[in-house]
Amino acid sequence: MSYKIITISRQFGSGGRTIGKKLAEQLNIKCYDKEIIDQVAEQSGFDKTYISEKGEDVKGGIFGTMMNRWSYNGPTNEERIWQIQSSIIKDIAEKESCVIVGRCADYLLADREDVLKVFIHADEDYRADRIVRLYGETDVDPKRRLKDKDKHRAAYYQIYTDLTYGDARNYHICLNSGAIGEDNCVAILRNIVQHVNN
Amino acid sequence: MSYKIITISRQFGSGGRTIGKKLAEQLNIKCYDKEIIDQVAEQSGFDKTYISEKGEDVKGGIFGTMMNRWSYNGPTNEERIWQIQSSIIKDIAEKESCVIVGRCADYLLADREDVLKVFIHADEDYRADRIVRLYGETDVDPKRRLKDKDKHRAAYYQIYTDLTYGDARNYHICLNSGAIGEDNCVAILRNIVQHVNN
Repeated sequence: MSYKIITISRQFGSGGRTIGKKLAEQLNIKCYDKEIIDQVAEQSGFDKTYISEKGEDVKGGIFGTMMNRWSYNGPTNEERIWQIQSSIIKDIAEKESCVIVGRCADYLLADREDVLKVFIHADEDYRADRIVRLYGETDVDPKRRLKDKDKHRAAYYQIYTDLTYGDARNYHICLNSGAIGEDNCVAILRNIVQHVNN
Repeated sequence: MSYKIITISRQFGSGGRTIGKKLAEQLNIKCYDKEIIDQVAEQSGFDKTYISEKGEDVKGGIFGTMMNRWSYNGPTNEERIWQIQSSIIKDIAEKESCVIVGRCADYLLADREDVLKVFIHADEDYRADRIVRLYGETDVDPKRRLKDKDKHRAAYYQIYTDLTYGDARNYHICLNSGAIGEDNCVAILRNIVQHVNN
């Protein structure tokens, strides 16, 4: 069997999303990223910005989020977004060969044998330069922005999957995009999808 | 600059050592593995089996090993082996292009820009089958053997490097050898060494 679905988890600023898009283009399959937010918005009625904030990061109140996952008063908004998002990702994987960026797709699709699980990361300097180049300067120092985002994303992953964020053993391949190069990462992944039988 | 040194950290039973040897053969460079033990034995006077046990794993007494790293009575045997081993690995990297398997070489050579840091791991079932095939059955269940070895190796790495064992961010590339295939891992690494400028 060959790999049909590629999940790309990524550190903020590492270029994982760009790698996912280029890979999907080269394989002539769809890349799901913001499209998932659109679908969650449609099914839940929540605002897209709200979903985008709640569907991959935990800001502040990490302990509170853990305690609230299933409160006695029924699921919280975060929990409802997680449930809808999870079901959408599973449906997409059932339907077509594709790349799925972020949103714990590696964990959600762990039972499937046709999923190649990828993690893209890079050193702080590389990511700081990249986010300033792509998203511009803000009042907050770029390294502070990275640290905050890393913390929020790791918290989300750990709370919802019960796995350690960034642990190589959760993935089939992890690449430092700064060291290996964005296009080389794409080529390595394309080669695996096209030539490796799992 | 291209990568001159390849460090291969690996989970027990993942085939990381075999991948390192094949890669070195294909690149026509030397692979340092047990040769490092020979050199430590020569310089320290300790027995090779003793060095092999103490130079990469911490068995039992993890807290004691941490407390003893620099005791008031001077360095312990473990500490002397670590110091000699570290100095040998740095000298080897200074001297020639090569593959170095295990022994925290990724951490020891972190300051060098010509080092490609690799981590090889694999699922438990794959590793259990592989160690029985290669090393035979013992009284201890193969999965128990893996768990013990994983624990001892992780403890050693954490005590001596202060980094989290298995964290993808410590490496440039991490590969699941069971999912990707041993020879494909070799080909991916060879391609990076031969074609990627860091």
